[in-house]
Amino acid sequence: MSKKIVIVGGVAAGPKVAARARRVMPDAEITVIEKSNIISYAGCGMPLYVSGHVRKLDELVSTSYGAIRNKDFFLNEKGVKVLTGTEALSIDRENKKVLMKDLATGVESYIEYDQLVLATGSTPINPPIEGLNLKKVFKLYHPDDAVALKEFLENADVEMPVIIGSGLIGMETADALVGKKLFPTVVELREQLLPGILDPEMAASLKTKLEDMGMEFALEHTVQKLEGDEDGNVTGIVTDKGTIDADMVLVAVGVRPNVELARKAGLTIGETGAIAVNEFMQTSDPDIYSAGDCVENTNIITGRKVFVPLASTANKQGRIVADNIAGKKSRFKGILGTAVLEIGGINIGRTGLSEQQALDAGFEIATAANANHDRTHYHNKHGQMILKIISDAKTGRLLGAQGLGKGDVIKRIDVLAAAITFGATLEDFYNIDLGYAPPFSTPIDMAAHTANTVRNKIDGLTASVSARELKEKLERGDDFVLLDVRTQQGYQSRHIEDKRGMLIPLHELRYRLSEIPKDKEIVVLCAMGGRSYEAACTLKGAGYNDVKYLETGFEGWPYDYD
Amino acid sequence: MSKKIVIVGGVAAGPKVAARARRVMPDAEITVIEKSNIISYAGCGMPLYVSGHVRKLDELVSTSYGAIRNKDFFLNEKGVKVLTGTEALSIDRENKKVLMKDLATGVESYIEYDQLVLATGSTPINPPIEGLNLKKVFKLYHPDDAVALKEFLENADVEMPVIIGSGLIGMETADALVGKKLFPTVVELREQLLPGILDPEMAASLKTKLEDMGMEFALEHTVQKLEGDEDGNVTGIVTDKGTIDADMVLVAVGVRPNVELARKAGLTIGETGAIAVNEFMQTSDPDIYSAGDCVENTNIITGRKVFVPLASTANKQGRIVADNIAGKKSRFKGILGTAVLEIGGINIGRTGLSEQQALDAGFEIATAANANHDRTHYHNKHGQMILKIISDAKTGRLLGAQGLGKGDVIKRIDVLAAAITFGATLEDFYNIDLGYAPPFSTPIDMAAHTANTVRNKIDGLTASVSARELKEKLERGDDFVLLDVRTQQGYQSRHIEDKRGMLIPLHELRYRLSEIPKDKEIVVLCAMGGRSYEAACTLKGAGYNDVKYLETGFEGWPYDYD
Repeated sequence: MSKKIVIVGGVAAGPKVAARARRVMPDAEITVIEKSNIISYAGCGMPLYVSGHVRKLDELVSTSYGAIRNKDFFLNEKGVKVLTGTEALSIDRENKKVLMKDLATGVESYIEYDQLVLATGSTPINPPIEGLNLKKVFKLYHPDDAVALKEFLENADVEMPVIIGSGLIGMETADALVGKKLFPTVVELREQLLPGILDPEMAASLKTKLEDMGMEFALEHTVQKLEGDEDGNVTGIVTDKGTIDADMVLVAVGVRPNVELARKAGLTIGETGAIAVNEFMQTSDPDIYSAGDCVENTNIITGRKVFVPLASTANKQGRIVADNIAGKKSRFKGILGTAVLEIGGINIGRTGLSEQQALDAGFEIATAANANHDRTHYHNKHGQMILKIISDAKTGRLLGAQGLGKGDVIKRIDVLAAAITFGATLEDFYNIDLGYAPPFSTPIDMAAHTANTVRNKIDGLTASVSARELKEKLERGDDFVLLDVRTQQGYQSRHIEDKRGMLIPLHELRYRLSEIPKDKEIVVLCAMGGRSYEAACTLKGAGYNDVKYLETGFEGWPYDYD
Repeated sequence: MSKKIVIVGGVAAGPKVAARARRVMPDAEITVIEKSNIISYAGCGMPLYVSGHVRKLDELVSTSYGAIRNKDFFLNEKGVKVLTGTEALSIDRENKKVLMKDLATGVESYIEYDQLVLATGSTPINPPIEGLNLKKVFKLYHPDDAVALKEFLENADVEMPVIIGSGLIGMETADALVGKKLFPTVVELREQLLPGILDPEMAASLKTKLEDMGMEFALEHTVQKLEGDEDGNVTGIVTDKGTIDADMVLVAVGVRPNVELARKAGLTIGETGAIAVNEFMQTSDPDIYSAGDCVENTNIITGRKVFVPLASTANKQGRIVADNIAGKKSRFKGILGTAVLEIGGINIGRTGLSEQQALDAGFEIATAANANHDRTHYHNKHGQMILKIISDAKTGRLLGAQGLGKGDVIKRIDVLAAAITFGATLEDFYNIDLGYAPPFSTPIDMAAHTANTVRNKIDGLTASVSARELKEKLERGDDFVLLDVRTQQGYQSRHIEDKRGMLIPLHELRYRLSEIPKDKEIVVLCAMGGRSYEAACTLKGAGYNDVKYLETGFEGWPYDYD
């Protein structure tokens, strides 16, 4: 008798389980139950549809060879039955059957399973405020949302778009608006954008770049309600710091896992509020698996449970579920919290632990950030970027990395993710035989270079200040020398105007040491950090004891001081 | 008393040793001896200078902030003395001094060292043939060569450029010519281009793409001599298979390490003919270090000694030498043989062992190649690529990878290089939390997908044939069914014309099984391999025993059969 596999959820993990299950179990009876009427869609592509980059919604539900992934596709190409417009109501674990309801007819019926897979996904969180039902208030979670938002943007004359929430979905929607030459104001409860994703100074640096583009940010603003006019159109966001005018609003304050079905069936819900699974993706009932946005994951580095719903994880887990159902033991080893996105041509990525996450996990950390080109400066494809590495100060083990810029940040994040996964140290990382040719990188790749900068700091060869620390020093009125080592030309174009500042170009430094007081703290700065690091070494070598350089130089300097 | 460090060689490893040594040893007396008059140049950028992509040679000797790396730069910014136009003649190890000669004046003198570093580099091999001294015969190794070649190309009306040798330098020069709309004929002794870099079927696939661009290849041609006219201009390459007309020739048949100085000093020369060093980059004399193109390396996977001279390795080793001289124990852990290049917009890369290298090292191997998009097909930045992974069939350990195409091959090569370095298995690799967003990749990255394909083959879930194997089967007259599962439209645009062929689109396959004979071998094919793999699973599930699919589909099919 053939195995009956029932899968609840038809977006990412569900269809992946179905497709793989079919290939490893040719005889299985595989049924997917999906509440909505669209399945197997590329949810992550919706901002691109809104921006017009993707012209037809069909492209988000088609294979790379152009077939539309609908019910017929799954039946004909995969031999998988899909019931759309069908809601799973409850699970009878004892009798191994699911009660489901045809939403069009209201008819309820049971479907039996040998193995059940819960791929119930997540739902956008509605903040507890008034006004969410006003017109021109959108979310971007389901293709229906994307269609509504796109249609609105094509027909309305939007001038004051506001996005509530600066997480991944909020910022990807910001990118879609920027693609349409609309520059939104982003309202964020926390003190930085992309909280939990980027460290504060990285976020500050990104904020400056996005502001230069035309975006605005209202950080540390608590939204109290949305206001509307007599026609019911949204007109403003009332916050604890005043009202922000708006003629459209996108709400993106996060998602919560859909666990009701699992909870009602008595399955264990984890500490994060998502469904608990073991490494084989089994719930507390070994015949019920779960995958995708509704499950909690384990962070590989800390071993802690986390809720990080992503399409990549959902797909990975889908294959593993199918293999385990087929009896091919397959393990999901956990996540690093890798996240990447593009906003207005700026590539942004992170993997592993942030500085705060590493501290929270009890690590004593060493970090460094560099600004530089992603490939040889003489190749026209080169772009700048800032890359930061977080490591365990005691062992030199890599813990996390973050990057942003026009350069190829994402390649470095992926390479670092691989290295972190396998427990690499900074020295190990430097040793990796990465590909070098002028169109792609530099002889010592910027990621390896950044790893070395962390090593230099651990070894006491150099010390640095972050942009924020330098700003605080300047504002506090500390007595120190602010030594700019660029050329006269670079200095003229931009510098920090301060009475503590002095300019000695690097190539003159060795001959003008007498001009620099030996008893003062010295902070060296330059365009990207390279020359100031060199200068700091020179000064240390010449007997200056308290020398630091500004990490990432002016490239990562987000303040107006010039 | 300050340490005296003498470095012989001023191109890549030498200047890197000097720069790092200065930072870690502020008091050291550091001298670089260089035979030629230019130092610290980006040799790898020379093809870009020839093509005109890099306009001024200065760009190849300047820092990213625009300073020219000449003697003054090293003296002023680094406190390093550089003696150009100076040849190191011999080493007196007992008295720790080097005899050197000022090539302009002929004056010989000694320089004392505490630690000596040999960064003597390599020299292009002159093949033992007549005619190398003819006019319009070039090499591309030193900036002087680049200047000569560029000047020639700008003033001559070249119509029949020929490159002898299809290794990295030959193919990068081919790229430079293509950049100038000159499409060279490449003459190669071996049966494939990029021998030792790419596996034969990958090289065949690349060859087709380059031929489509206008390049030509004369493989398995032994060059016997170069012919010229009465003015001494080269006119042809005489090979064992006839004469190839030429109005310019670039000779790039490899390099040999410069080991004379080391050999005369009695230092151990390794089995590869390059200088033997330990993991601290010490030669057989612990006070003499060596780094860069003149040393032999250890392959991380096989533990064998190899000679793979690359700028990235040279730079990496330079830092390690300086640290060891300073007493900071630092290890160079070996290489993977990673190599990347771009030809006419096609990205090419490899890392780890090739199929043949893995077999030679005694591995029982499993491999798979996939063709697909590098990112979501609905994002306009997507490009196709072919990716191949070689693994240990017994343990699933990754051994090597190769890729080519317009897509971002190099990112995958770097991620695979990291994974291989740390001993990752195919399953480990699949589990890496790589960054996913539509502008960058697919939910399951193509590299992870390819690792899974290898797993499927190891597990017996599927079997495949390579393009070459299918061609042989077709030519041998084997009795089998050649089942194309694309749409009618795809089939019309291109297919293999053969009486054994039949077309059943994938979505009809489950309903038309009766048309396919059960007792015959079946080879399924499609555009990129995805549908044919799916179809092969369907057929296997339906009781067909001998089913294979064409790896990489038509994307990797280099033959004219349509």
